[in-house]
Amino acid sequence: MDTHTPTHTESGTSGPGGPDLRHHGDAEVRDGGAALVDLAVNVRADTPPVWLREHVAASLGSLAAYPDGRAARAAVAARHGLPVERVLLTAGAAEAFVLLARALKVSRPVVVHPQFTEPEAALRDAGHTVGRVLLRAADGFRLDAGAVPEDADLVVVGNPTNPTSVLHPADVLASLARPGRTLVVDEAFMDAVPGEREALAGRTDVPGLVVLRSLTKTWGLAGLRIGYVLADPETVGALERAQPLWPVSSPALAAAEACVAPRALAEAAHAAHRIAADRDCLVAGLAEFAAAGLRVVAPAEGPFVLLRVPDGAAVRHRLRGLGYAVRRGDTFPGLGEEWLRLAVRDRATTERFLRALRRAVPT
Amino acid sequence: MDTHTPTHTESGTSGPGGPDLRHHGDAEVRDGGAALVDLAVNVRADTPPVWLREHVAASLGSLAAYPDGRAARAAVAARHGLPVERVLLTAGAAEAFVLLARALKVSRPVVVHPQFTEPEAALRDAGHTVGRVLLRAADGFRLDAGAVPEDADLVVVGNPTNPTSVLHPADVLASLARPGRTLVVDEAFMDAVPGEREALAGRTDVPGLVVLRSLTKTWGLAGLRIGYVLADPETVGALERAQPLWPVSSPALAAAEACVAPRALAEAAHAAHRIAADRDCLVAGLAEFAAAGLRVVAPAEGPFVLLRVPDGAAVRHRLRGLGYAVRRGDTFPGLGEEWLRLAVRDRATTERFLRALRRAVPT
Repeated sequence: MDTHTPTHTESGTSGPGGPDLRHHGDAEVRDGGAALVDLAVNVRADTPPVWLREHVAASLGSLAAYPDGRAARAAVAARHGLPVERVLLTAGAAEAFVLLARALKVSRPVVVHPQFTEPEAALRDAGHTVGRVLLRAADGFRLDAGAVPEDADLVVVGNPTNPTSVLHPADVLASLARPGRTLVVDEAFMDAVPGEREALAGRTDVPGLVVLRSLTKTWGLAGLRIGYVLADPETVGALERAQPLWPVSSPALAAAEACVAPRALAEAAHAAHRIAADRDCLVAGLAEFAAAGLRVVAPAEGPFVLLRVPDGAAVRHRLRGLGYAVRRGDTFPGLGEEWLRLAVRDRATTERFLRALRRAVPT
Repeated sequence: MDTHTPTHTESGTSGPGGPDLRHHGDAEVRDGGAALVDLAVNVRADTPPVWLREHVAASLGSLAAYPDGRAARAAVAARHGLPVERVLLTAGAAEAFVLLARALKVSRPVVVHPQFTEPEAALRDAGHTVGRVLLRAADGFRLDAGAVPEDADLVVVGNPTNPTSVLHPADVLASLARPGRTLVVDEAFMDAVPGEREALAGRTDVPGLVVLRSLTKTWGLAGLRIGYVLADPETVGALERAQPLWPVSSPALAAAEACVAPRALAEAAHAAHRIAADRDCLVAGLAEFAAAGLRVVAPAEGPFVLLRVPDGAAVRHRLRGLGYAVRRGDTFPGLGEEWLRLAVRDRATTERFLRALRRAVPT
């Protein structure tokens, strides 16, 4: 593999020997018991907030009724200044990826890696042969729009990208739009970026644009399965027809409505700034490991950082022995065992983690 | 249409002029506001019980974690005496229908009507041409196994059947099994039948059997989206691969685990007997309308009854004006406007409803 220029490759549907696209951070935590400090899962700590948990609990009084998604859909539309026809609520972004893979007529899908692997896994499961654009480490994993094949009719890219934490400029992303192409921008972590800089959500001037949003990470609702799609009404209609009846549960709908209200948006904005400050601490602390060959992908703009460290797998195992779960990087196409992803946590947790890292990294 | 013998017809994917397969009872209630007494939706009244609501509420403390379905799956397997490989948890039966339609390799699916319309709708949406077996009113909508085409490789039948409330004998259903055929028995309402007479859930001696179960109706969890599939491990695997990641939310998993525990099973068994008694009251009360031409499909074995009454649409509208929502029958293939479905409610509600019915039915 040429790692010096962005590469475009084809992956089949089976991919033997390739990375396990179905591996996710939760697997690195749940079998370790409560003893492990979780830096593997990208969900904001101390979430959901009490007010949100109480709001969801209050919704349980109407569980006997079938879900009615209209109010939540209208609230999400209002939050982005869009008509409801451009909004689809989904059972998490994971459902959205399956819908995109199954409902859209595409023949040449391309995924920009390294990124969250679920879109490619869903496309493969739907029978597609998936092309990959591999961004290069030497370039800081920045998006090279020219590396995307002209004939790609579905392009999937994350912004900010999981796991690289790179925030691509909105205009570079928008430049990927083409007639006959669906451009999927996964903005699952955009609400953790102060000011939502570079967001495409709410834009109606980019043809074929599909934006995915999650409420899982900022609000600690991973267990509730809620997210949404913003797209032109035709695409929303096609995805909606592929959904099961009542796709989103009533508690999830109640949460969605609450999480796009002005009070929640203000809280998310505040959290984004706090995350940025906490991330600065983490990145500054990691700098002391430069002598040991540890490098952080910079600038990190999401609520996690990606780093490269010699003998990364051994470091990860030693950290686990010291009580810290971090996300392995080798299941992301384009990365290998020397890559690790760390969720941004509060300053005290970070300080403790850095002490453990000093024992885990040979100097 | 020949209504005197079970008929087999083909339906295309568009079905213009046919019944609206996507109409469900919830639509008849939700736009009427709280003023309407709901006899349209087949969810047990006064549910979920307080203990279950509190159990679900307690699960909200771990919403930040991704769902882990292993404990609930094991509990469901134990409840039916099956290994976990034969169990798949789904986001309601609605998701199961979509998975069956998309993941199984079938070319000649047949749905036995009248029944819940979602299986056919999901099959059509997946691009299938769906054959219909129409059971006849003159026969009490009893299953005639000979009416199912020999070459059908997927057969879907409900037991007890919504909306007819007919309980088919388990051995007649099992006789539909064939080499190379998937036999889907929707037992969404079986836990409302005392003793679960005629259940196929838990059987491993019927080749190609797929049993669907719901926790929605008995437990008042329609808003939570939870159900499960029992099938051979290969079929379970195929359906599972078509699911999104984390398909069932954590609160739904918590509810599922609780609803298959011995205490809950005892409560459901008690409720089934109470429903049978309440249904007897309803059916007895409806007998007085025989002179007006009203006929109940008998014996009714589910938590609802189907009736035929002259000028049924007008009766339904008059009932609505009197504050009662009942389920229209004309969206079920094989039925027409003269058919109405009533959910079984407690005795006091039934008495009030019967008084309203006296004003709604011309005598």
